[in-house]
Amino acid sequence: MAVSTDGAFERDTDYITDRIVDDPNADWPVEPGRYRLAAAAACPWANRTTIVRRLLGLEDAISLAFAGPTHDERSWQFDLDPGGVDPVLGIERIQDAYLKRFPDYPKGITVPAIVDIPSGVVVTNDFAQITLDFSTEWTAHHRAGAPELYPDHLRDEIDEVAESIYHDVNNGVYRTGFSSRQGAYDEAYQVLFDRLDWLEERLTAQRYLVGDTITEADVRLFTTLVRFDAVYHNHFKCNRNKISEMPALWGYLRDLFQTPGFGDTVNFEQAKEHYYVVHKPINPTQVIPLGPDLRGLASPHGREALGGRPFGDGTPPGPPREREAFGHLSDGRP
Amino acid sequence: MAVSTDGAFERDTDYITDRIVDDPNADWPVEPGRYRLAAAAACPWANRTTIVRRLLGLEDAISLAFAGPTHDERSWQFDLDPGGVDPVLGIERIQDAYLKRFPDYPKGITVPAIVDIPSGVVVTNDFAQITLDFSTEWTAHHRAGAPELYPDHLRDEIDEVAESIYHDVNNGVYRTGFSSRQGAYDEAYQVLFDRLDWLEERLTAQRYLVGDTITEADVRLFTTLVRFDAVYHNHFKCNRNKISEMPALWGYLRDLFQTPGFGDTVNFEQAKEHYYVVHKPINPTQVIPLGPDLRGLASPHGREALGGRPFGDGTPPGPPREREAFGHLSDGRP
Repeated sequence: MAVSTDGAFERDTDYITDRIVDDPNADWPVEPGRYRLAAAAACPWANRTTIVRRLLGLEDAISLAFAGPTHDERSWQFDLDPGGVDPVLGIERIQDAYLKRFPDYPKGITVPAIVDIPSGVVVTNDFAQITLDFSTEWTAHHRAGAPELYPDHLRDEIDEVAESIYHDVNNGVYRTGFSSRQGAYDEAYQVLFDRLDWLEERLTAQRYLVGDTITEADVRLFTTLVRFDAVYHNHFKCNRNKISEMPALWGYLRDLFQTPGFGDTVNFEQAKEHYYVVHKPINPTQVIPLGPDLRGLASPHGREALGGRPFGDGTPPGPPREREAFGHLSDGRP
Repeated sequence: MAVSTDGAFERDTDYITDRIVDDPNADWPVEPGRYRLAAAAACPWANRTTIVRRLLGLEDAISLAFAGPTHDERSWQFDLDPGGVDPVLGIERIQDAYLKRFPDYPKGITVPAIVDIPSGVVVTNDFAQITLDFSTEWTAHHRAGAPELYPDHLRDEIDEVAESIYHDVNNGVYRTGFSSRQGAYDEAYQVLFDRLDWLEERLTAQRYLVGDTITEADVRLFTTLVRFDAVYHNHFKCNRNKISEMPALWGYLRDLFQTPGFGDTVNFEQAKEHYYVVHKPINPTQVIPLGPDLRGLASPHGREALGGRPFGDGTPPGPPREREAFGHLSDGRP
């Protein structure tokens, strides 16, 4: 991440773009048990991968390393694990796997990242490609009943919607919150809420973003929407209104939250702790707000009336593994 | 203001407690035209005095000096006036009137403050007493139809309710927002929302806080409530919910906001600018949020159904003087 000299936030998007593909002769071939996904429950970009992994039933094929919510300038650390060490990779911080591959790695140490377990090196941190490859390259290891999140005939539309959502919403909340100049903030805020208004209209008449089933586009919007009222509304000054004040988006968010594979991957405590503690430059006291009351996420959403088949011809995933089971809804009290 | 060593906010309440009284032999006798009220539209404590002055029709008896929303460590300044000088007092900052009276004045330079125009010295900044004296000492100069805001038979109840509101709500939002330690924040937040829950219940069945007419207690609650969603919810981390999410308090707030003498004294732009710019230690970028959409304050509240007589046997005040006319409701767009 970086802030440009004119006070606008600009994300460093220079990722490691290696891919794990369904080709035994590739540098990184699909191979169950070989790779470990490093994620953090706090992070919306990592949350995409934990959702898709669960929806597709890739838990046994790709194991999961969970970093804790806070960290210093050395980036995400495995301080939730006994001894502060990931039990499979044997490292304290995800940067260790980056530096093992590139000793002078000059860019952001980010999650999600996929690590090659035998060599201990990072293969990729290209978050936008990781979930697409889960859908398209790992098909041989999908569970029975896995949904098609990136079906051929909808890819153009998914890509187009996802691009707008990336710029205006996923990254838009960061552009809004990390602006250090009023004009840059005003511009990012306007772009963000214009896009939310556009989404509100689109989702008034249809249950999901593209087609009549859950797709990659919904996963991408969800991870920002679910953190919006809990974090971005306050911390990033995205405060024209809460998502709970936009009827279609609020119904859509609750619908997805209550769908197996979505809400059960979300940990609000860790998300709040991450943003409010790590972003000391915009929250110098590092005090974490107790609110909001999040229980409304469990309330009836009525979106079934719009039709749609959440998993298409597939089925919902089973319950989450114990360690990944989240979704607690605070009432906003200490 | 001060922050104690354990990270809790403690307000300096050591005010200048002189009073202006209805006694020609007093040090400071009631005398129309002699005193100037120094206020700032941003400040909730000063807003009490501008509301009561308008409700009672004291505009001609007590003139008004309006400080701008932002200031440095020298406190409130008259930078909205031509040349940055109050045209009556001839000073740039309210501190000039404090220092004229006490050259080594060691305490907070606050508004509201009342200045004796002939001598140019501050008489009092005891905000809690100022509005009560407007009601009880300046009666000879009230307008025809002025309401009784502090009637004899309700004083005990008004005092009791106001004391709880002061500690838990008026000052409670500051205690919440200025906590630099999680435990102090948690405690203040809980006290605040417990009191808001108590008020929500009290105001579900009755239109006003005490009796069936507007009293001093309502004025005191209003100035914090009206700034809550616009400022405190985000800036002070008072984010269990917005006031607009508490049906009785939201109806009560809209009812008062739409009552002549209340909403027309409120300037949201100045309030937001004040908090977000002056409190640099908790908002280092000094970026001012564009939200929230405040237009709901003008929506029908339905509180008439609870009965009550807003002004008792009196009447509403006429329209505000031009310079004091505020109440613009932003839609949260740039």
